[in-house]
Amino acid sequence: MARTQIVTLLTDFGTAGPFVGAMKGVILQMCPRANIVDISHDIPAHDLLAGALVLARAVPHFPPETVHAVVVDPGVGTSRSILAARYGQQTVIFPDNGIVTLLERVLPLADIRICMNLPQSQRYVSNTFHGRDIMAPLAAEILKGLHISTLGPRPATYKLFELPNPVVAGSRIVGQVMYIDHFGNLITNISGELARHVGGRLVNVKTTCCEKDGGPIVTSYGFVDEGKPLVLFNSTDMIEIAVNQGRAADHFEARVGSPVIMVMQ
Amino acid sequence: MARTQIVTLLTDFGTAGPFVGAMKGVILQMCPRANIVDISHDIPAHDLLAGALVLARAVPHFPPETVHAVVVDPGVGTSRSILAARYGQQTVIFPDNGIVTLLERVLPLADIRICMNLPQSQRYVSNTFHGRDIMAPLAAEILKGLHISTLGPRPATYKLFELPNPVVAGSRIVGQVMYIDHFGNLITNISGELARHVGGRLVNVKTTCCEKDGGPIVTSYGFVDEGKPLVLFNSTDMIEIAVNQGRAADHFEARVGSPVIMVMQ
Amino acid sequence: MARTQIVTLLTDFGTAGPFVGAMKGVILQMCPRANIVDISHDIPAHDLLAGALVLARAVPHFPPETVHAVVVDPGVGTSRSILAARYGQQTVIFPDNGIVTLLERVLPLADIRICMNLPQSQRYVSNTFHGRDIMAPLAAEILKGLHISTLGPRPATYKLFELPNPVVAGSRIVGQVMYIDHFGNLITNISGELARHVGGRLVNVKTTCCEKDGGPIVTSYGFVDEGKPLVLFNSTDMIEIAVNQGRAADHFEARVGSPVIMVMQ
Repeated sequence: MARTQIVTLLTDFGTAGPFVGAMKGVILQMCPRANIVDISHDIPAHDLLAGALVLARAVPHFPPETVHAVVVDPGVGTSRSILAARYGQQTVIFPDNGIVTLLERVLPLADIRICMNLPQSQRYVSNTFHGRDIMAPLAAEILKGLHISTLGPRPATYKLFELPNPVVAGSRIVGQVMYIDHFGNLITNISGELARHVGGRLVNVKTTCCEKDGGPIVTSYGFVDEGKPLVLFNSTDMIEIAVNQGRAADHFEARVGSPVIMVMQ
Repeated sequence: MARTQIVTLLTDFGTAGPFVGAMKGVILQMCPRANIVDISHDIPAHDLLAGALVLARAVPHFPPETVHAVVVDPGVGTSRSILAARYGQQTVIFPDNGIVTLLERVLPLADIRICMNLPQSQRYVSNTFHGRDIMAPLAAEILKGLHISTLGPRPATYKLFELPNPVVAGSRIVGQVMYIDHFGNLITNISGELARHVGGRLVNVKTTCCEKDGGPIVTSYGFVDEGKPLVLFNSTDMIEIAVNQGRAADHFEARVGSPVIMVMQ
Repeated sequence: MARTQIVTLLTDFGTAGPFVGAMKGVILQMCPRANIVDISHDIPAHDLLAGALVLARAVPHFPPETVHAVVVDPGVGTSRSILAARYGQQTVIFPDNGIVTLLERVLPLADIRICMNLPQSQRYVSNTFHGRDIMAPLAAEILKGLHISTLGPRPATYKLFELPNPVVAGSRIVGQVMYIDHFGNLITNISGELARHVGGRLVNVKTTCCEKDGGPIVTSYGFVDEGKPLVLFNSTDMIEIAVNQGRAADHFEARVGSPVIMVMQ
């Protein structure tokens, strides 16, 4: 039985224009049996942190030999490199701009390469659409069996961005909102592990966001009344502040970077 | 020839975040040849009625053995069950919140089961992301041949929500807007069948929405001038009020629940 | 090895409603091994020019035997025909409303046919959803081997719309904004070829849009400071005006049709 050929796309291209279709066409032209999977094309334009979070939350679930093409790339056409790396038994192709920062924390990348040797079929490379002209053809070649070690040398280093860490002072954790999801839920940078380490059984915790009361710690959204705030350990074991069937981002007037304080009493 | 393995996703997750990618990864991890088909991820957050309508309009068209994973699930992690059922020769996995209400009217569900026995591979189940931790793995197992009768017992009952029915008084039908589509068209709860029953050949019908004139009954949008209102029997034989190349929702200042009156003269 | 069966969808249906799912279901019902590829469902409602541009930028990249179903169709159900045509070794199914205008300029369509003979399986055709009732079944039949010459007669003519051409006066080119992409970049109707023809080595060019300075000609976005305007030859060799990591549409207060002037000094 032929190998499955799964390739995912994660971009900030939006879905109204021709960019996504062009990338899909190029991949299928070179690899007609590819199974192209949309992870997202709606990363906010140029938002590397949002892209990094989606990448880290999605990629680990995919099967061996999946190839991921990541195109959140405000530096397209400048001197920034395009890198390819192994993530477990999968492959990730990405611009060297830090977008793998959170994925790296799940499992370190291996055998990172600078993509210098493009497929010979790729005669024309534009300056502004490397998704179509470099990432898509490379993804197709890797699907067809190309080993990334042939792509170019290992980089001396590669970019990871700094992320604010929560600060612990006695029984108090000071963190911040790291991501606001589609439902307006506030994903913080405080891990459940840290909260349990500081707060033990967490029987009496007061959480605030933007100086407003975050509500009780519960196991899921539906355990407080509609419109009421709540705190939970989310599906990736991060502290998340939400409003049952409402938008916490609006309720708390919060945005990425807003302060979140947990006091274990 | 191997069986095709078609699985659809219908969610309110939006497409900017990691939820959709995570579900797709889990399915492909367990079933690498799955053909994952996006029905929609843009059901408005927690909007069971909109989800129910999209489900009922899309699912009946799919081939036998398709598996549908439906995740519009404001009660995730509470005591609500996750159900699996046969719909003709297809399978639907859904939270017990009434989202199958309109699908049931096309063809009743059969062999409904409470999903209690999860795949053994599924060691960790979060409280807030059953799409990833329960629905996706179950869908993959069913694609691979698991019979839903092994999932758990039949429920004593399951949730269907009440929908307002149109009221007929003599030659007058009083209904309401049930759904506003992407084009701003107003889909009512008045079936073409009912209108024909009450109005016969429908030669002289006056339709109003929010007390504004709905325009003539025509067969399609382009049979009135641009910007003018019209009434038609839509592709599912429901009375629909539209504006040619405009947005009826704006023109009529209508929303879901707005009154629609047809008077057969 | 079985033929791959790639079918793309390009619509203005949006992704919140049932239209896309219904089309996918119909295609898979008739052709369960079809690989359905979303090009876009977010063409602005009834926007033939935007649809034409996406079509022309995406379709040429796809492999032989791909079938494209194009449903931007404000005239659905009126006397407008549905056409099928060969584009190289691919097939395009589209309403006769000019949406192929830009695709035709890449490579002329061949063997154009009026779709009159529908698949026998297609008993019911609505007046308002030809995507589901005509385009999808036809696409499935063509994937399965139907030759478009059997669909109906050649049309006497078919619709292409007029597009404004840039005007050259001495060393001055007067064009306009033709499309605004997801990033707010302004794609003009001035080709790189024309600019080079008029301006030679383009060493001293002053570009304005809506009477505001367009900035220097550079090779990519990142070669000016963040928030500053720039001009480049884009990935399809058209003159594009952008703002590095900003939205040129806002910066220039531009919309489709806004004037763009290049003076070669």
